[in-house]
Amino acid sequence: MSLLHPDRLFPAEPAQRAIARRLFAEVEHLPIVSPHGHTDPAWFASNQPFDNPAALLIQPDHYVFRMLYSQGVPLHSIGLAGQGETEPVATPEAVWQTFAEHYHLFRGTPTDLWMRHVFGEVFGIEEPLTAASAARYYATIDTALRTEAFRPRVLYERFNIDWLATTEAPNDDLRHHAALQADPWPGRVITTFRPDPVLDPEFEGFDDNLATLGELTGEDTQSWTGYLAALENRRAYFRAHGATATDHGHPTAATADLSPAEAQRLFERVRRGEVSAADAELFRAQMLTEMARMSVHDGMVMQLHPGSFRNHNANIFSRYGRDKGADIPVRTSYVQALKPLLDRFGNRSDFTLILFTLDESTYSRELSPLAGHYPCLRLGPAWWFHDSPQGMMRFREQATETAGFYNTVGFNDDTRAFLSIPARHDVARRVDCTFLARLVAEHRLLEDEAAELAVDLAGNLARQAYKLS
Amino acid sequence: MSLLHPDRLFPAEPAQRAIARRLFAEVEHLPIVSPHGHTDPAWFASNQPFDNPAALLIQPDHYVFRMLYSQGVPLHSIGLAGQGETEPVATPEAVWQTFAEHYHLFRGTPTDLWMRHVFGEVFGIEEPLTAASAARYYATIDTALRTEAFRPRVLYERFNIDWLATTEAPNDDLRHHAALQADPWPGRVITTFRPDPVLDPEFEGFDDNLATLGELTGEDTQSWTGYLAALENRRAYFRAHGATATDHGHPTAATADLSPAEAQRLFERVRRGEVSAADAELFRAQMLTEMARMSVHDGMVMQLHPGSFRNHNANIFSRYGRDKGADIPVRTSYVQALKPLLDRFGNRSDFTLILFTLDESTYSRELSPLAGHYPCLRLGPAWWFHDSPQGMMRFREQATETAGFYNTVGFNDDTRAFLSIPARHDVARRVDCTFLARLVAEHRLLEDEAAELAVDLAGNLARQAYKLS
Amino acid sequence: MSLLHPDRLFPAEPAQRAIARRLFAEVEHLPIVSPHGHTDPAWFASNQPFDNPAALLIQPDHYVFRMLYSQGVPLHSIGLAGQGETEPVATPEAVWQTFAEHYHLFRGTPTDLWMRHVFGEVFGIEEPLTAASAARYYATIDTALRTEAFRPRVLYERFNIDWLATTEAPNDDLRHHAALQADPWPGRVITTFRPDPVLDPEFEGFDDNLATLGELTGEDTQSWTGYLAALENRRAYFRAHGATATDHGHPTAATADLSPAEAQRLFERVRRGEVSAADAELFRAQMLTEMARMSVHDGMVMQLHPGSFRNHNANIFSRYGRDKGADIPVRTSYVQALKPLLDRFGNRSDFTLILFTLDESTYSRELSPLAGHYPCLRLGPAWWFHDSPQGMMRFREQATETAGFYNTVGFNDDTRAFLSIPARHDVARRVDCTFLARLVAEHRLLEDEAAELAVDLAGNLARQAYKLS
Repeated sequence: MSLLHPDRLFPAEPAQRAIARRLFAEVEHLPIVSPHGHTDPAWFASNQPFDNPAALLIQPDHYVFRMLYSQGVPLHSIGLAGQGETEPVATPEAVWQTFAEHYHLFRGTPTDLWMRHVFGEVFGIEEPLTAASAARYYATIDTALRTEAFRPRVLYERFNIDWLATTEAPNDDLRHHAALQADPWPGRVITTFRPDPVLDPEFEGFDDNLATLGELTGEDTQSWTGYLAALENRRAYFRAHGATATDHGHPTAATADLSPAEAQRLFERVRRGEVSAADAELFRAQMLTEMARMSVHDGMVMQLHPGSFRNHNANIFSRYGRDKGADIPVRTSYVQALKPLLDRFGNRSDFTLILFTLDESTYSRELSPLAGHYPCLRLGPAWWFHDSPQGMMRFREQATETAGFYNTVGFNDDTRAFLSIPARHDVARRVDCTFLARLVAEHRLLEDEAAELAVDLAGNLARQAYKLS
Repeated sequence: MSLLHPDRLFPAEPAQRAIARRLFAEVEHLPIVSPHGHTDPAWFASNQPFDNPAALLIQPDHYVFRMLYSQGVPLHSIGLAGQGETEPVATPEAVWQTFAEHYHLFRGTPTDLWMRHVFGEVFGIEEPLTAASAARYYATIDTALRTEAFRPRVLYERFNIDWLATTEAPNDDLRHHAALQADPWPGRVITTFRPDPVLDPEFEGFDDNLATLGELTGEDTQSWTGYLAALENRRAYFRAHGATATDHGHPTAATADLSPAEAQRLFERVRRGEVSAADAELFRAQMLTEMARMSVHDGMVMQLHPGSFRNHNANIFSRYGRDKGADIPVRTSYVQALKPLLDRFGNRSDFTLILFTLDESTYSRELSPLAGHYPCLRLGPAWWFHDSPQGMMRFREQATETAGFYNTVGFNDDTRAFLSIPARHDVARRVDCTFLARLVAEHRLLEDEAAELAVDLAGNLARQAYKLS
Repeated sequence: MSLLHPDRLFPAEPAQRAIARRLFAEVEHLPIVSPHGHTDPAWFASNQPFDNPAALLIQPDHYVFRMLYSQGVPLHSIGLAGQGETEPVATPEAVWQTFAEHYHLFRGTPTDLWMRHVFGEVFGIEEPLTAASAARYYATIDTALRTEAFRPRVLYERFNIDWLATTEAPNDDLRHHAALQADPWPGRVITTFRPDPVLDPEFEGFDDNLATLGELTGEDTQSWTGYLAALENRRAYFRAHGATATDHGHPTAATADLSPAEAQRLFERVRRGEVSAADAELFRAQMLTEMARMSVHDGMVMQLHPGSFRNHNANIFSRYGRDKGADIPVRTSYVQALKPLLDRFGNRSDFTLILFTLDESTYSRELSPLAGHYPCLRLGPAWWFHDSPQGMMRFREQATETAGFYNTVGFNDDTRAFLSIPARHDVARRVDCTFLARLVAEHRLLEDEAAELAVDLAGNLARQAYKLS
């Protein structure tokens, strides 16, 4: 029996399922546009074989290890090394066995859908993953990874990827993107400018980051004007390496529009390192508006991903560092928060700000009314914990009636799990077709309109919004 | 092909669809009760032909131009004149063409449902609206509007309207309602008392509004007691012109119950024009409780519509004024906010306060538990951005299990788009029948109970709650 | 015609209904595990007949009288005596008649489902409850209650209850649980430690409660260390009477982790009775962390039920007291609130904290991400106003994709309405089977996985989480 049913995620009701199938047939084989993600550009620059199955599929996937950890599996058993950890880090084979033994935990989660797609479609496995089949799984995957067919560039082509954006820190040298630009390989792997480490005074190593920023750009990042010039410089550097977008992962959506003199005084307080929590927040807020100003000039699309309380688990953070499944969403507000930025740039059609949220209560209350009015605003897809069938459906159900489809930007896979990219786009396309099929079946939309929308949602809207062409 | 499918909005699953059809047959042709809306009473008083298609269907509809504007269509292209606007305002024909060329933006929105109903049912058009058909559409509608059959009173009767409430400012002279009262035409067009301009110190022209209020009533609106007397006077004036209800569009649901001395001192601060934001909020809060007190005496039903951040777009507001699609909902709280008012009047069955929200997270958390306990409270229907199929469904799904059906008040069309009134009630009745059909199909409700409920939701509950008889 | 359809609450679509039926067949007759509720242990200790139908089914059910009251039925008509009430309290027969005359108010609410189950399954009634049938209903139920078959212990056995937890105040002598322990009757009725009256400085009679606590334990509850020792003493006393869990009904989820010196100073302020609202909140917050600390030592499972604004209706509270249907949910936050407690104990697998909410917006935003990471956390079922078909479905839809099924703990009936316990578990099992059937029909889950989950959700997860074995 296959691990994947061809009608998965389609509605059970036969009339709607038939419509969903027809719509999906229009988009199933379209190329993948991935305008926001976290794959490693070194993979494509070097085209070296991937490491072992655990290192590829388990250890970089915070969805996986957060669930295992929540049920008492210690992180060393998942192969993560922590400061002060006395237990030995598990071998890749043992990590895989642990994963398999706990695989039932993922029932009903998108991880199960993605993993079954990777196992079934990418590796051609047909038996379910269980404690008993774990070793066979490991061997099959490990063997495959050593073959030419599983080199990163071959998979990129097999996955039919049209664009793949990675995300880099502002001081990254982008050597891999430079190498890719110089390489005859036609794959389009571009970077994204993610300046949080030099915009957020509370980011780890902020002072050092600004020093490095100064060195890289030859600007005096001790002065407000030099700091701004350095940022413009790095934006240009990123654009030269393919970037069309910036990304901002601030704790809140707060923006500010201080006078130049106020902004300069704030910067000076920040530079002296005496920054209060309120000043740090105000500085991030001001810098979002500065980024918008620069985007108006240089054309970079701006993405805002607010509302995650990062590193909530103090113990895990101190021992294992960032991105260990302990980021927790918090209530997030947009209406007052974005007003300063929108008052300056909100009415421009030549500027695009894509909004994301982890607070679903804002879909219908704030984000859709905002995006359904301001020319600069677009809504990003259901994000992170909501990148799931029900999560995507809630996004469409709660956003469409006010924002329509055309104020949304298609799908982001947002992943570092390269092998799951086809799975994630497959889920998104199926959910969109299911949503559209319902509208058709309830005579709210004609089927030819739905077919056009399915194609737009599967790639065109992302190309337009992210200026990929 | 017709623009409207007879089964639109019904569930696709055949058993539920059959039930929904049967329920809808019971309510499809019932008269329309419209207890809250924004049509112009002059239409019915004068019975003059409507203006051109753009002026009637596009320009007064903020749902339409907010969507067009969000996708970069400038407001002058939609026929709106703005201060400092250098581009010529488009002709009605050009406005219509622009609308048609962007009509795909409305896919999946209630605007599409309403418009297709207006085109198909009111004007008998059968072809879809496209760039190519736009001129034919314009001609058809424009021609129809010049005929007797499209005079306001004829349409009122054709639409089978039983009651139609408009909304007027407190200093309005109500001349049109007076004319209608003196007219033998049997249509029931009544007013609603909307005193925000004289209750909210932050309302544009508040001081002038109070001066006018004083002149109209012969009361000294410089004194607290005179101000209260003037409000009582205007309430009586509105009641004499048919009003059964008041309506309050405050930024929040805050209420207060100050001592008379405190209230008087607050009023004096407000009158001196030195009002802080906190005082303005407290004054509005106190005035809601004063309005409740007056309602207990004069029997007027009170409606509270909080939670809209009005005129969010500073640039649009300064150039085009209010109501230009730039009002954005914000998080709204009711539980602590309403307590002062409820502590005084909450246990009365002879007082009715109808609550609305733009913050859907309050349906199940706050509004239904409140309305399912306090005798004075009822829940208004899904409002504004949520006046849509999914929005209405969320309201029923999230409100019914705690508040039941009988603590709700049926439908409000809340519109100034007169020709869409039948469309909006049609959508509401279909969604309610769909919701009820599901309960019947899942054996949570008997079909005869559902049929009784469908009729109550289609009109009886509105008549009772708004005292229309 | 039966009052209950065998397919009630199953999806209408035939393929999903067939799956739901098969899944439900696996769980329909499983024993009931009720790890959290409010039945009276005296019933089982004394095994005396229940009182009349109104006293058993109407008066203790706040869902019932809040709905009646909301529609203008005075509390004396429902048989409740209030201070200063001049109207005579209605007789049981009159209460029943009033209930029947207003029974249509419950359409679409879980009360209707529960009541029909009690009437149809427990009492074998087949006619609907109406004004006309009310007297027959009363007679049938009243007669039944006088028979041996309706003694509490017989019903406990007939209902196939495996475990039944009651909830007692910390100073309760637990005499009924002691009697049950000494009794050969094999029913398992255990207590739960609910210390709010001695942890919350704003609880009615807090000072007296602490004095009593001191007397009962022989500890000096005037001192911080004595107070803590007294709490440990009572926890041990409750454990000796079967308790495996504590329960905490705080206004918010705030926790704190003060130094011992700070905690002691705070306690001294509290003991002097000069407690500010902020100090009261901080004290409750600190005490949650102290309770967690004690749980780590003594193994008691901790339940947190925050977010209810108790006794919102001042008039009803002063005349009728607590628990009169006037508790209203408020917005509730968990992420920052729980951090102090989680920083200390969050990474322990030998400690369990079960979180509940009345603020559904936290399911996907806060609770599932937290429970999907911290080993100590589990999610309680949809609570109180959300203990309803749509409410449970929203919980599964919003929690499962991030927290999975295994970070949830099955069902709580949470009721003092003993006769409705089978009804409530029946509803929960049906809704879970409906949710699972959809996942199977949409090929997100295999049917054998769903069957295993149905059984786990129906009892195993509760047994594990609450340590019932």
